[in-house]
Amino acid sequence: MTLHPIGVIRTPFHEQKGTPIQAALASGAEGTVEVDPAYEPGLADLDGFSHITLVYFFHLCDGFDLHVTPYLDQAQRGLFATRAPRRPNPIGISTVRLLAVQANILRVADVDMLDGTPLLDIKPFVPDFDHRTDVRTGWYGTLARTPDVRADARFEGRRR
Amino acid sequence: MTLHPIGVIRTPFHEQKGTPIQAALASGAEGTVEVDPAYEPGLADLDGFSHITLVYFFHLCDGFDLHVTPYLDQAQRGLFATRAPRRPNPIGISTVRLLAVQANILRVADVDMLDGTPLLDIKPFVPDFDHRTDVRTGWYGTLARTPDVRADARFEGRRR
Repeated sequence: MTLHPIGVIRTPFHEQKGTPIQAALASGAEGTVEVDPAYEPGLADLDGFSHITLVYFFHLCDGFDLHVTPYLDQAQRGLFATRAPRRPNPIGISTVRLLAVQANILRVADVDMLDGTPLLDIKPFVPDFDHRTDVRTGWYGTLARTPDVRADARFEGRRR
Repeated sequence: MTLHPIGVIRTPFHEQKGTPIQAALASGAEGTVEVDPAYEPGLADLDGFSHITLVYFFHLCDGFDLHVTPYLDQAQRGLFATRAPRRPNPIGISTVRLLAVQANILRVADVDMLDGTPLLDIKPFVPDFDHRTDVRTGWYGTLARTPDVRADARFEGRRR
């Protein structure tokens, strides 16, 4: 199956090292989503939503390992029990704050992706759909909270 | 960019009509995720998580419209302000309950995808990353709650 970018995400982050590891931990970092003008009519009604989920391609990641040491842990974990970017299908998902819609440009905050990231989809964030209660979070749940962690270079693109 | 399924999702739903429109509204419907055995090592540590987010391909959708009438509304809305499955990149995201991990097979509940859906990725659900507060939800927020809505055939695959 073949996907085609529908736009590009502009952020202040130009290398993996120092980039927020999650949108929820991005401390308000601002960016813009430049949607291909052909898709602009599909952005109607989006401005009523305070948060949107961006689906994008980890375009600098190449290959993957099935065991990884996540940023927040010291132990190796199964890849699918982590959010590490090097994945068999390198698709990223980030929920960001939508600050403004100006024609085909979205101003957003809490970005955690690299500048130039290819955009695949935009979905409205709806807590009725997206929140869950009574959640257990495995290895993550055993950690002391470390909200200031930023990425290092461990997942930079490289052949498998 | 080319993606390759890493498995297949089995559910009780064989046509769009009658399928839950969101995992959060799926009333516990159970299914299985059959991960390609080659990826089984990547499932380590997943069993500690009560919820996982499945990323998948809306394989029966073909083409898209930039304005759609969502299941929950009577008005036309911009496509990207809805979760409609016919999208430029037909990628679906559903957070389901993880009931058990048995080798390369995941037993899950609250499935809202069609039987045979190609799996692209599995991510652990972590409220610290995935929940948001102070959320506005645009047209959705103006609706009376309608938790029993099921899909009809309006988004069945068809050429644009």
